Amino acid sequence: MPSVPQTAPTAAEQARTLTEHGRVATLATVGGDGAPWASYLAYALLADGSPVLCVSTMAEHGRNLVDDQRASLCVLDQTPAADPVETARVTLAGVARRARDTDEEAAARAAFLAAHPGTDFLDFHGFSIWIVDVERVRWVGGFARMDSADGASYATATADPVSPHAAGAVAHLNEDHADALLLIARALADLPDAVSAECLRCDRYGMDLAVTRADGSREWPRVGWPQRLDEPAQLRAASVELVKQARAALA
Amino acid sequence: MPSVPQTAPTAAEQARTLTEHGRVATLATVGGDGAPWASYLAYALLADGSPVLCVSTMAEHGRNLVDDQRASLCVLDQTPAADPVETARVTLAGVARRARDTDEEAAARAAFLAAHPGTDFLDFHGFSIWIVDVERVRWVGGFARMDSADGASYATATADPVSPHAAGAVAHLNEDHADALLLIARALADLPDAVSAECLRCDRYGMDLAVTRADGSREWPRVGWPQRLDEPAQLRAASVELVKQARAALA
Repeated sequence: MPSVPQTAPTAAEQARTLTEHGRVATLATVGGDGAPWASYLAYALLADGSPVLCVSTMAEHGRNLVDDQRASLCVLDQTPAADPVETARVTLAGVARRARDTDEEAAARAAFLAAHPGTDFLDFHGFSIWIVDVERVRWVGGFARMDSADGASYATATADPVSPHAAGAVAHLNEDHADALLLIARALADLPDAVSAECLRCDRYGMDLAVTRADGSREWPRVGWPQRLDEPAQLRAASVELVKQARAALA
Repeated sequence: MPSVPQTAPTAAEQARTLTEHGRVATLATVGGDGAPWASYLAYALLADGSPVLCVSTMAEHGRNLVDDQRASLCVLDQTPAADPVETARVTLAGVARRARDTDEEAAARAAFLAAHPGTDFLDFHGFSIWIVDVERVRWVGGFARMDSADGASYATATADPVSPHAAGAVAHLNEDHADALLLIARALADLPDAVSAECLRCDRYGMDLAVTRADGSREWPRVGWPQRLDEPAQLRAASVELVKQARAALA
């Protein structure tokens, strides 16, 4: 079996991928009595992944933040799963604060306007820009796919340039190249008795497969690309390369 | 101008319509240190609209609920707006509790399984059914459309059978019957100088229009159906009846 990098995205990378590609979140704040309050709102990200909110004291969450700056945001994958219960999501938890200086305020405003170009309320009375310093991250990719990260890992992680745009490639692999996927599963996932293989998702490091074996049991192996990908257009060549490796291994 | 009922859905009805048609929510709970935590999960509804959750103590929100039962859920419209920032949503806030007796537990389990037929973890160790007693409701229908309701109004409100299924009818009215909408705006919305009219949405009580007047100004009138509708299939006849009334009024 050829040596194929098996790196999987970290929880921090998965989280950053979701937050970079989203524009709306549900925010949890606490009221004066300490009770939680869930509300939906627009967000943007600073360069380090810190969420930027534009919040009004006319809204309950805005009044909550003035009194207690602790905040948590849940962001959903922009590509919902077939069953929405399985949609990937991330929770960020931390503390909201106003910008530290005019430079940071300008950067936060610019980020918000870039993510929400039509926004005309930034200067309305009662609206303020808040920045959330992320302390904890919990990523849930779906059933039995979940992990945690700290704020520092999240801040330094980069979003995956491939996975949010891979749905078409995944569908194409499953519809037109089931034989190739089976070959990959047999040769590169150490499952020589595989009888069918489906690609579940692709990211910059590799692909996740769902494999059925001859005895009817199921496996969910990961197969890495020969090299890390930088853009979705490289998925095709990477898949072809894996098939070549698989053929060579089985020859 | 003929007398047309102008009733609009109440905030409680709007809220109930969103929660009855949704299956997933973001839950806000508080941790032991009082900090908020936003997480995504499946829910179902009891007959009075109380959310039913199936929560594991393996999850942070499950551990939070054991210590502090205060909870808030945010549910989004299943039909996202063109700009997701404008998607309609509702926040429910209240207190979560275990079922009061075996009958209520059975009803809650049945509701959860009906909403999520594939659920196989109800009896897993650590999973429990929780019921949220709703105390406060905040509905946000989009820009400048929002209102509050109390738990009692929410519990007795019924979901709108028309609005969640009206998108096709709204598109059809705008694409093929712009003249009829303009007639309705002029005759039934008291805007004789209207030059164009777009239908924004329909519900069991009527439709919301966006109207441009001769001087370029914009109005957002509501026009009620002659009778309350019980199903989406009645939208066509109700629209035809409005046009008849409009023609008669302008004759």
